[in-house]
Amino acid sequence: MNKEQLISLLKATLAELTGSEPKVLTDDDSLVNYGRDWTRFLDPSPLAVVLPASIEEVQAITRFANEHKIGLVPSGGRTGLSAAAVATNGEIVVAFDRMNTISGFNAIDRTVACGPGVITEQLQQFAEDQGLFYPVDFASSGSSQIGGNIATNAGGIKVIRYGMTRDWVAGLKVVTGTSELLELNNGLMKNNTGYDLQQLFIGAEGTLGFIVEATMRLARPPQELTVLMLGAEDMDGVMSILKTFQEKMDLTAFEFFSEQALSKVVEHSGIPRPFETPTPFYALLEFECTSEAVSDTAMELFEHCMEQGWVLDGVMSQSLQQLQNLWRCREDISETITRWTPYKNDISVVVSKVPGFLAEIDDVVSREYPDFEIIWFGHIGDGNLHLNILKPDALDREEFLQQCNRVSKWIFEIVQNYGGSVSAEHGVGLLKKDYLTYTRSAAEIEMMRGIKKVFDPNGIMNPGKIFDL
Amino acid sequence: MNKEQLISLLKATLAELTGSEPKVLTDDDSLVNYGRDWTRFLDPSPLAVVLPASIEEVQAITRFANEHKIGLVPSGGRTGLSAAAVATNGEIVVAFDRMNTISGFNAIDRTVACGPGVITEQLQQFAEDQGLFYPVDFASSGSSQIGGNIATNAGGIKVIRYGMTRDWVAGLKVVTGTSELLELNNGLMKNNTGYDLQQLFIGAEGTLGFIVEATMRLARPPQELTVLMLGAEDMDGVMSILKTFQEKMDLTAFEFFSEQALSKVVEHSGIPRPFETPTPFYALLEFECTSEAVSDTAMELFEHCMEQGWVLDGVMSQSLQQLQNLWRCREDISETITRWTPYKNDISVVVSKVPGFLAEIDDVVSREYPDFEIIWFGHIGDGNLHLNILKPDALDREEFLQQCNRVSKWIFEIVQNYGGSVSAEHGVGLLKKDYLTYTRSAAEIEMMRGIKKVFDPNGIMNPGKIFDL
Repeated sequence: MNKEQLISLLKATLAELTGSEPKVLTDDDSLVNYGRDWTRFLDPSPLAVVLPASIEEVQAITRFANEHKIGLVPSGGRTGLSAAAVATNGEIVVAFDRMNTISGFNAIDRTVACGPGVITEQLQQFAEDQGLFYPVDFASSGSSQIGGNIATNAGGIKVIRYGMTRDWVAGLKVVTGTSELLELNNGLMKNNTGYDLQQLFIGAEGTLGFIVEATMRLARPPQELTVLMLGAEDMDGVMSILKTFQEKMDLTAFEFFSEQALSKVVEHSGIPRPFETPTPFYALLEFECTSEAVSDTAMELFEHCMEQGWVLDGVMSQSLQQLQNLWRCREDISETITRWTPYKNDISVVVSKVPGFLAEIDDVVSREYPDFEIIWFGHIGDGNLHLNILKPDALDREEFLQQCNRVSKWIFEIVQNYGGSVSAEHGVGLLKKDYLTYTRSAAEIEMMRGIKKVFDPNGIMNPGKIFDL
Repeated sequence: MNKEQLISLLKATLAELTGSEPKVLTDDDSLVNYGRDWTRFLDPSPLAVVLPASIEEVQAITRFANEHKIGLVPSGGRTGLSAAAVATNGEIVVAFDRMNTISGFNAIDRTVACGPGVITEQLQQFAEDQGLFYPVDFASSGSSQIGGNIATNAGGIKVIRYGMTRDWVAGLKVVTGTSELLELNNGLMKNNTGYDLQQLFIGAEGTLGFIVEATMRLARPPQELTVLMLGAEDMDGVMSILKTFQEKMDLTAFEFFSEQALSKVVEHSGIPRPFETPTPFYALLEFECTSEAVSDTAMELFEHCMEQGWVLDGVMSQSLQQLQNLWRCREDISETITRWTPYKNDISVVVSKVPGFLAEIDDVVSREYPDFEIIWFGHIGDGNLHLNILKPDALDREEFLQQCNRVSKWIFEIVQNYGGSVSAEHGVGLLKKDYLTYTRSAAEIEMMRGIKKVFDPNGIMNPGKIFDL
């Protein structure tokens, strides 16, 4: 069967099921837009894009794919950074934009059912409207979708306090690679009845099946959030700040970024510098300033850090506007640097090992990339560092990628020596697949292959992502 | 090969590996003691008991079992309530009492490595000695072991605030049914590199492999804990109390129990009644009373609940001694009723559905068990109810079990209608296996079987537990 015949048959199959015209896109623009994510290293080339409106339609697509041995690529907001949602090989992209309703909110349970296509910001707003809070937040929350967040176990800027997406999933409906609908955990707080299959789908990057509905937990909103931005001479200073504050206060965020990162943001987004003097590194701390005692403690610790020489300058937010501006210094980094086609490393170690780890990485990077601009930032309270290498305009994309890949191996050897992760929150997708062995053993990968076969024996679900069969 | 020959060969194999005498027990007392857990419905009959002292020994035992097709039953503190650690069928019991060291504590990461045989209380004490807190706590913490806690994803009395054991595991070393050692997650806070295999082993009841080391997280200790014990006329009152307090305060516990439960504890343990007047139900609330404002709020809500008629009487702890006595009213229930060979149902629904659910269950139970004494208690803040049916002395154990099983089906039909769990925290083991389908679909169980085959193709790991192959 040729491409056109396959697409016609797919349309007919879905039309028969739903009694209406299915939404199948095959124009070039759609194939490119829906066939890629925020990475730009690989060229999208899907067969077609389908936008199902119901779970039944998802099941029908899955049956169709099994029958015709076609790969399926689940597609959310396509803000991924490891090419897990990129379709390079004639797959059918299944995009969830139409399955985007929020329903079944329960105030006592503080749970709500989300279609996979619900935008993160939409859920955050919904929670706020109920006097509650959805705490998983990151730069792409305006376009990332809940299904994708779950499939990649998205982290972000509040992990130190609220954990990852995993911690907010109370139930999942999934369609497996065998087109079976599983309703997992039903929103229960306690349910010890065998293997927690829900946990397997979280972070599986769509390789086991589709997330077709998620019951998400909401939290009580934080109160009187306050940001402290501190300028530090070096990373040891940043770590000392972290330790000092964590011993005495409950932080809702502890982020760091370099002067290179800040100057790019200030230049491109027009927000003011937090304070006059540039310093090599910045730490952004957030906490709930619910009483004068808390505020006093924060000021005392701030002064202590100044006296120790860890902090060179600093500022504490006095208004919501100021808090938002300070946050933008950190949050706008990712989008600001996108224009330089950054090569992203998203690495982590246990927090206590960060200083030695960072020093070793820094050595390699400055030795090997003397001509490349390096942007460091990350969630240092979680041991998670984002190392971004910017592509010089003059350099060809392929050549740049090759040079980065070469040095990546050395970086990942350091990660391995420190027992760290080659992908703390971005997932593996296509871009990190070759480096998976630096974090996961051959035996583990073999077990993963076995699990994949249980849920997707024909290998139709997001083929080639995470590992090869 | 006969039994004696097998045991000799096992001993020789282990001796060759370690160069010393292995600890293998075959006397009748040991076979009984190590072959059963807190349930008393099934007669233990293991082949032998091995107490390994190292991971290598565990791997050797697993290889031996594969070679000779002998079942292995992992054994911790044997405080389980679903017979997951009962060896009824000539298995080798592998008990972890000798692998009980705590090591590698790191104050910045707040993590510590535990041998599987570390007693829960031992870890709690260790945490306290470091000025920290291990928050998973339950009646059997004096004898339950960390490995068993993880294998059963133990819950307990602080879940409403701190979650289940799952939430405190930062890394696991496991030996699979294929004798492969996997080192999972290494204590990382963020690690999105494929399927989170660690999550599969948590709550798998030893059917996939052995937990041979766990990296556990510790928390900052709670401050100024205070208990409020309230007497209520009915369950609707208890639920109204929960809602009222949860809207305004962060609770560290919300437990409930019936007058029948309390009177048993008062009679047998000699602790004083919380207040003179008996009421049909009691709610025990705990919170951090860190300021006068919190205390005032608690008192206001207490008075509000009195005015509404939900609360008939109540008391707030004024000292640590009083707090401990109030807690004993709840915590001593399980041990107190053990002498009546209780048939335990450990069921859960989402919190908002508890009142309707409880009413329906109560109808069935009072209709069908008019002659049996029923003890209700549970973690109502998590939607988790413990329904205990006491065996009349005159009734034979078999006959009692049969009568209970008959009614269980009706109870579990209600559970199923409410989308609940037939085992909220006790696991499935042998006792709940027949009822698994009331919470998990046939498709889910089939996927679980598939996963089991990946990690334990010869079916040697805790055979017959959770589901049959």
